[in-house]
Amino acid sequence: MKIKGIHLETIMLSENGLNIQIIDQRHLPFKLLLTNIHTADEMYLAIKDMAVRGAPLIGAAAAWGLYLSALNAPFNDVFSFIQQKANLLRSSRPTAVNLFYAIDRVLKRIPINADKFKIIEIIKKEAIAIQNDERYNSIAIGKNGLEIIRAISKNKNGKTVNILTHCNAGWLACIDYGTATAPMYLANNDNIPIHVWVDETRPRNQGSRLTAFELENENIPHTIIADNTGGHLMQHGLVDLVIVGCDRMTANGDAANKIGTYLKALAAFDNKLPFYVALPFSSIDFNIVDGIQNIPIELRDKNEVLYTDVWYENRLISASSSNTTSPAANYAFDVTPARLITAVITEKGVFKPNELINSI
Amino acid sequence: MKIKGIHLETIMLSENGLNIQIIDQRHLPFKLLLTNIHTADEMYLAIKDMAVRGAPLIGAAAAWGLYLSALNAPFNDVFSFIQQKANLLRSSRPTAVNLFYAIDRVLKRIPINADKFKIIEIIKKEAIAIQNDERYNSIAIGKNGLEIIRAISKNKNGKTVNILTHCNAGWLACIDYGTATAPMYLANNDNIPIHVWVDETRPRNQGSRLTAFELENENIPHTIIADNTGGHLMQHGLVDLVIVGCDRMTANGDAANKIGTYLKALAAFDNKLPFYVALPFSSIDFNIVDGIQNIPIELRDKNEVLYTDVWYENRLISASSSNTTSPAANYAFDVTPARLITAVITEKGVFKPNELINSI
Repeated sequence: MKIKGIHLETIMLSENGLNIQIIDQRHLPFKLLLTNIHTADEMYLAIKDMAVRGAPLIGAAAAWGLYLSALNAPFNDVFSFIQQKANLLRSSRPTAVNLFYAIDRVLKRIPINADKFKIIEIIKKEAIAIQNDERYNSIAIGKNGLEIIRAISKNKNGKTVNILTHCNAGWLACIDYGTATAPMYLANNDNIPIHVWVDETRPRNQGSRLTAFELENENIPHTIIADNTGGHLMQHGLVDLVIVGCDRMTANGDAANKIGTYLKALAAFDNKLPFYVALPFSSIDFNIVDGIQNIPIELRDKNEVLYTDVWYENRLISASSSNTTSPAANYAFDVTPARLITAVITEKGVFKPNELINSI
Repeated sequence: MKIKGIHLETIMLSENGLNIQIIDQRHLPFKLLLTNIHTADEMYLAIKDMAVRGAPLIGAAAAWGLYLSALNAPFNDVFSFIQQKANLLRSSRPTAVNLFYAIDRVLKRIPINADKFKIIEIIKKEAIAIQNDERYNSIAIGKNGLEIIRAISKNKNGKTVNILTHCNAGWLACIDYGTATAPMYLANNDNIPIHVWVDETRPRNQGSRLTAFELENENIPHTIIADNTGGHLMQHGLVDLVIVGCDRMTANGDAANKIGTYLKALAAFDNKLPFYVALPFSSIDFNIVDGIQNIPIELRDKNEVLYTDVWYENRLISASSSNTTSPAANYAFDVTPARLITAVITEKGVFKPNELINSI
């Protein structure tokens, strides 16, 4: 999608093929900072510190991290060096399954006895394939979700469709188009009038900083709200549907997504509103059921809660937004049980959560 | 309660009787700023801009605002001057009913033909009575709520009782002790082990700034969490009960409280956890039923959402925490339907929401 009219993707191999260009999303929307990543260790930090974030994007980023590890590997020990960096990358964030999926997908392609240059070439090809797949997935999710929005629009006789979303499952979380946002972008292209309620998404404000920035750049009407607000809007008929992304879905359709998603699902259910989860199959973990018990939930630094990153006098500062001598807990995700999910929008179609297992 | 070991109340008539001392809560927990309010107009701004906030406190503040209006009234037109200032004070904030209750209670006491000094004396007496009543109400709410916590503690064989609260319904929202916090303070005094999950309470962070500060000063174990977190904690057995305050309750037991309260009530209900609303009868509006339709919800400045007040380099600054060129909406309260409320903790006892009407 576009930033100030210029098309960008979230992650790119540099022209010389020696490093990976990312958008350092910690500075958005205040500053567009493109950064070159040179090593797997740098990519590990970029993922861990959320310079890049979003389930599909961290999958692609990890694949490119393995590419960088191959570039930097000693000639006589390429495979074990890559394995070691794969383990490092795996440890960057625990919840999104795309990370593990992408690393496994790349590693499986590497022949045991290939030389360094062959391995570099193979990993590059696979990383590009992962990136292409995720771009394709987003567009396909968009097309499938578009029909849902179109139907609601028809039902409302063309009146504005109000969509609520939580966190950023936009193009910045993917390669392009996004997951939850892809249907919105396609609806907007089709001149279906929509308006998006953007949850701020504390503690890191990915909604009010990233999703709002994306929608503004695509000229989609939207309104930022505190995370506390969605229930009130639903009670008053100001929301027609909810679409969120997903960091890991279990085989039975439980969805781990940014903390607070579960609360919006409860509110949608209480107000008889449809609640959709948009995700590629690469975010589904068919190895587990019962997400509440079995999806590992990342516990991040408490200072992300006690302090807030704000833009002040032309720079990003981290300043006290609470009683900073108090303890704080920073759970990054929660799990929305399948029973609260109307349907799952994927690149392969729209499914009831319990139909996923039969659709592989 | 105490700040750094020194007992304070939220609002006080000054020693010379000519002005009202408040704690300017916009600076807490970073700075303890005591301010003198000299006129009804200043009190109007203090309420509107939330230097003082919390349903019981703004009731008392409005009563003292009328006292100041009497002090400053022209001799030949005392009553209409007070009436005019009463209307101004009424317009400061729309949701909490205590404001209207306190103003009506004071106005009713003023004899039509009394002279200025007599009126000053009468209003002073009534403002003190309101303040005393709210102090008493908080202690009585505390005693009634204490028994609920004690029962849960016994049920858990004395293991720590985990209480979740939203916003600040603490002593800073009242005169002393608070409403939602009063049972916590009394449980702590009784050596019942408790731990409080403190919702940050965006957009103004009354939880992470005020409630956390209160609990820290009273040495009560607590943890600040993003507003998004409560549902996840409940799913994992980390919450035993929820206690929140209330800005206006209808005759049928619907509760307007800080935006986001409804989402926590839904989560408590989904996890079969008790959800209590603590409030004095002065916060009940027996004139209306159906809170969702009939309680006016304050819409505040959008900049409270787009910018965050943070403490940086020893001063309070308002800095960009979002894509500030986006629109934003700032609904200050939501309504939790009576069906989600386990019981209401008042100074007169603990009632089911539908029993309130019979308990006047």
